[in-house]
Amino acid sequence: MTTMRRWEIDAIGREHLRLRDVPVPVPGPCEVLVRVAAVGLNYRDKMVIETGRGLPLRFPFTPSSDLAGEIVGLGEGASRFAMQDRVISTATPDWIDGLRPGTARTPAYRTLGGYYPGVLAEYLAMPEDWLVRAPASLDDRQACTLPVAGLTAWFGLVERAGLRAGDTVFIPSTGGVALFGLQIAKAHGAEVIVCGRTEDEERTRQIGADHFIFAERDDWMEQVYRLTGDRGADVVLEVIGGAHLGQSVELAAVGGKVCQIGALAGFDFTAPAMPLMLKDVTIHGIGTGSRSALERLVRAVDHAGIKPVIDSCYPLSELPTALDHLGHGAFGNVVVTMQD
Amino acid sequence: MTTMRRWEIDAIGREHLRLRDVPVPVPGPCEVLVRVAAVGLNYRDKMVIETGRGLPLRFPFTPSSDLAGEIVGLGEGASRFAMQDRVISTATPDWIDGLRPGTARTPAYRTLGGYYPGVLAEYLAMPEDWLVRAPASLDDRQACTLPVAGLTAWFGLVERAGLRAGDTVFIPSTGGVALFGLQIAKAHGAEVIVCGRTEDEERTRQIGADHFIFAERDDWMEQVYRLTGDRGADVVLEVIGGAHLGQSVELAAVGGKVCQIGALAGFDFTAPAMPLMLKDVTIHGIGTGSRSALERLVRAVDHAGIKPVIDSCYPLSELPTALDHLGHGAFGNVVVTMQD
Amino acid sequence: MTTMRRWEIDAIGREHLRLRDVPVPVPGPCEVLVRVAAVGLNYRDKMVIETGRGLPLRFPFTPSSDLAGEIVGLGEGASRFAMQDRVISTATPDWIDGLRPGTARTPAYRTLGGYYPGVLAEYLAMPEDWLVRAPASLDDRQACTLPVAGLTAWFGLVERAGLRAGDTVFIPSTGGVALFGLQIAKAHGAEVIVCGRTEDEERTRQIGADHFIFAERDDWMEQVYRLTGDRGADVVLEVIGGAHLGQSVELAAVGGKVCQIGALAGFDFTAPAMPLMLKDVTIHGIGTGSRSALERLVRAVDHAGIKPVIDSCYPLSELPTALDHLGHGAFGNVVVTMQD
Amino acid sequence: MTTMRRWEIDAIGREHLRLRDVPVPVPGPCEVLVRVAAVGLNYRDKMVIETGRGLPLRFPFTPSSDLAGEIVGLGEGASRFAMQDRVISTATPDWIDGLRPGTARTPAYRTLGGYYPGVLAEYLAMPEDWLVRAPASLDDRQACTLPVAGLTAWFGLVERAGLRAGDTVFIPSTGGVALFGLQIAKAHGAEVIVCGRTEDEERTRQIGADHFIFAERDDWMEQVYRLTGDRGADVVLEVIGGAHLGQSVELAAVGGKVCQIGALAGFDFTAPAMPLMLKDVTIHGIGTGSRSALERLVRAVDHAGIKPVIDSCYPLSELPTALDHLGHGAFGNVVVTMQD
Repeated sequence: MTTMRRWEIDAIGREHLRLRDVPVPVPGPCEVLVRVAAVGLNYRDKMVIETGRGLPLRFPFTPSSDLAGEIVGLGEGASRFAMQDRVISTATPDWIDGLRPGTARTPAYRTLGGYYPGVLAEYLAMPEDWLVRAPASLDDRQACTLPVAGLTAWFGLVERAGLRAGDTVFIPSTGGVALFGLQIAKAHGAEVIVCGRTEDEERTRQIGADHFIFAERDDWMEQVYRLTGDRGADVVLEVIGGAHLGQSVELAAVGGKVCQIGALAGFDFTAPAMPLMLKDVTIHGIGTGSRSALERLVRAVDHAGIKPVIDSCYPLSELPTALDHLGHGAFGNVVVTMQD
Repeated sequence: MTTMRRWEIDAIGREHLRLRDVPVPVPGPCEVLVRVAAVGLNYRDKMVIETGRGLPLRFPFTPSSDLAGEIVGLGEGASRFAMQDRVISTATPDWIDGLRPGTARTPAYRTLGGYYPGVLAEYLAMPEDWLVRAPASLDDRQACTLPVAGLTAWFGLVERAGLRAGDTVFIPSTGGVALFGLQIAKAHGAEVIVCGRTEDEERTRQIGADHFIFAERDDWMEQVYRLTGDRGADVVLEVIGGAHLGQSVELAAVGGKVCQIGALAGFDFTAPAMPLMLKDVTIHGIGTGSRSALERLVRAVDHAGIKPVIDSCYPLSELPTALDHLGHGAFGNVVVTMQD
Repeated sequence: MTTMRRWEIDAIGREHLRLRDVPVPVPGPCEVLVRVAAVGLNYRDKMVIETGRGLPLRFPFTPSSDLAGEIVGLGEGASRFAMQDRVISTATPDWIDGLRPGTARTPAYRTLGGYYPGVLAEYLAMPEDWLVRAPASLDDRQACTLPVAGLTAWFGLVERAGLRAGDTVFIPSTGGVALFGLQIAKAHGAEVIVCGRTEDEERTRQIGADHFIFAERDDWMEQVYRLTGDRGADVVLEVIGGAHLGQSVELAAVGGKVCQIGALAGFDFTAPAMPLMLKDVTIHGIGTGSRSALERLVRAVDHAGIKPVIDSCYPLSELPTALDHLGHGAFGNVVVTMQD
Repeated sequence: MTTMRRWEIDAIGREHLRLRDVPVPVPGPCEVLVRVAAVGLNYRDKMVIETGRGLPLRFPFTPSSDLAGEIVGLGEGASRFAMQDRVISTATPDWIDGLRPGTARTPAYRTLGGYYPGVLAEYLAMPEDWLVRAPASLDDRQACTLPVAGLTAWFGLVERAGLRAGDTVFIPSTGGVALFGLQIAKAHGAEVIVCGRTEDEERTRQIGADHFIFAERDDWMEQVYRLTGDRGADVVLEVIGGAHLGQSVELAAVGGKVCQIGALAGFDFTAPAMPLMLKDVTIHGIGTGSRSALERLVRAVDHAGIKPVIDSCYPLSELPTALDHLGHGAFGNVVVTMQD
């Protein structure tokens, strides 16, 4: 096969989205050729297509960062993988371990499907360092949700907040990161309170939520206090942001950690100073995680039996429908598969 | 001596402040009698007197939390100290070690000179557990500044942010906590940038600041970027709060820590989400520290030769003038001494 | 009821063990009266009775530290518990939170059934600070195993080694601490390898062990390497000690943690320096944990559904048989109950 | 210049050491050419030459790992440095950040002058990733002591033990790592007790030691207890190893950390279990540190004004004399310079 399909935009805007036939790429030195099997979509992908999000995109531009696939070609010197190895991508490929790159003035926002080309294509040639081995216990549609949704929840809850059994975790959503947070927290023996839409209660409990609060009710904060006997949440997965962060601080236990992950409610957050200071609360800014952390997540998924929650799968050609789905809100992850 | 002087208010408001002659108290079981030598004032003391700050004060109420003094009486069963031991108070006496008390719903704001009676008196009877040994290397006027100003800077920089040699610390003030922060950071081999008023440059440099930025200049943030080669500050001692916290987040290095300590600019803070998340920044809410931490600070003061910066000392009778001084801004600490 | 039964020794040695009728004690100020329901035995109890273990015992001496029971009396000023509250003891009662007591020269070995009187009695009057609430999800026979066996495994794996999902844990035993370690590790989503006697394989796997290695086989270390693809164990629960610690260091992964808990194989341990240094391995000395940590374990037990493994229960009068059982090796915990 | 001098051995043993004239190497892709100015010697270098230390040496083999020099040539694609940049080497070049490489079965002992060729040469072509910028405040003879002696002390005291002001540090030697430990501890405001030879007392105190104990005296352990009021040392820099580690554990404070660094007294260490367990002591195995940690040390050296202690400098041709000096024990570091 010498040609393949790839989504591209030549300018910012949904109306510029095109599925094109292009040549299959050839891996360069220390690169591998990956046959993509599935791509996990994130809300950010929709924003990048529709607004560019201020990123320095080079057109034609291919969106998305999260793939699961198979090694089908090895460039000169490539040695991390063998042919047929199943792999997933890292979304922030320059962040190997320890501190992420960047400076105070210029944070490094170099992601696949952002600064670097994205993964909505049948084949990709990419540096072998940008990939990690896929978990043996997941199929491709499940595995492709790890690089952003899974890793963000993992990095916040486990590597920053230091979650442990018996902790109470509060998660105010049922999106992709949120449900990974629920599953990762349960895998660590935590008690989890999810706040979501009434119609999602049953399936959220089936995934393991100990308590479910109806987001539509006025007294949802009061309910968190009651469920915890006023103790509050040891860890909050703040996936909404804006003024909601302030509510997370008020719900945090003494010594609690708030993982600030999402900015759905705005790019400026606000919070009250007194509970932050009087409860010794810590706020961790979380933007995915390192490649090492992704490797640890893969081990955790295999050993703890975590199965990512997939709301829907769309074939490659139906990307626009998948993006619309994301816009309406998903219960867990939305995935695109290469096979029609 | 059977009577002594003590400041009291019978109602909220500066106009109710009275210096009264009252009986010297008698220590109960497990209490000690302390002859107070000096009291360190904090801006909070002024606010409590003038506004009550929402605290459940019981009148007549004595303000202030930070004393240095001497053990001159032992109640039944008291065993932590001997007669003539020099001591300082803990401002948050219920917080011995580990986690502070309180719940998510009701943070524990039980301080001396707040929930508990304060220390602006010649003698005090108090539980022996509320005191720690004073540093041998400081006189009383210096030692009385440790319980809040010193401990807050120590707890944030050292016990939460994990400061170490070579780190860059940014401190946007020259008040009591700020100058302790400067001295503690220098004692750990850090590089310190202070932002303050033009007239304070020279003495701030004398205390050890590596760089001084004029707060009045529009480009002060730009200067922090320049001084750090865009790297930013590893630790920020945020003593101003409000929207200033957002600036601290923007100045923080990748992996940087912001200690949120002060609320001079308002009790709600705001900050931009993207640099927080893309730089893996952590915000620590800091409200003094535990008694164990105060004991570690005492050891640090003795071993590292830290000498607290005292702007002015006032005799007990001139408390109102001392409070006015605080209101105008002090360079370091304002202290009240018992000897006229 | 005014008299009760209590085990006592008047001198060191099993031959001095007596079950006596003594008056029910009366709680003093800030004390509570506990009706003991069950006592968890530890190997240490047997050693204290038989050898004194160098402790400053005051005769008549009652052994053992771990009880579950009920509050049936409140001394003056006691306020932490209400009548009928179910409680368990802390074995190291002076260690509330943060650092444990003691000095370099004189480590504080002040335990119940060691320095302090023990708990093998139908009723006990003790300071209320020495107790914590029992987990709601356990009966008394289960709950009484937490204070030493459960807490030691928890403190090592969770609070010192920072265990998390996906980690590989190696446990070279099936005793009380070991099986708690297995259960706590599984509750955190870890992969667990247990090394034990052939006859214990099946029940160890039923409790959750992912792999079981026959301790009798010469190549057990080789098998740990093989099972981990040479990666080694992220955490080792070293409950044997002596030269076995050296083997644990050799089996530890890069960056691995070894929790040194037991001294069955001798009070001096040895280990090779090169793997310790070249693999950045950390050895944590573990001797139970703080009261705060016990409270966290109680929450973990309730939320993660951990059910302690009980090998056998003996009535109070059969303590000597129970001690013999301990001497032969138990699969999990040996418990004494008050009801005959 | 097309030829240069380089020390080589063609077989294990001091008698095979030769200073040869060889061609100046040419940097390959992503390599740089370094003109070496100074080389810091470690006791390990002597052992590698004399015994091979079990390493897979390829002959002719050049020993030593620690250089300071200047970039004088850039291979294709090299971009981390510019011409004339002053650099120092990393001794464990594969360890960039986070976890070091290696497995449980096969620790990665891939150092310069061990697995990789060493640096006792006038010029070296090496991957640019193996170097970091030299501290601006040190000359070459000082800077070349950082990669092993400086980094090992830094990594143990600061990045593993979390040293802070007021801590008491015990250092039982006056060698290269030991004196770096003294200086780094003092730069963090710690109290430092050094145990060494009588003749070294004065100069050790001049470098900053608060207390000096004569190693020859029988009661040196007693003196550590006395100097700390029985509290013990918060951190011990164990550079001797063997049975000495046991003494370090006995001297450690409750919650203390022992950095196991040296194996002068043997490759097997022994220690008593009870004080390890009853004092909650942690032993950290330390084998240099990551490149990121070296960069942090460089910043610390520049900001805290640390000046490495150099016992003697030898010209390149006098390497054998320098090695003899190491064998007799040095006060601080022994350095070889390229200029005769």
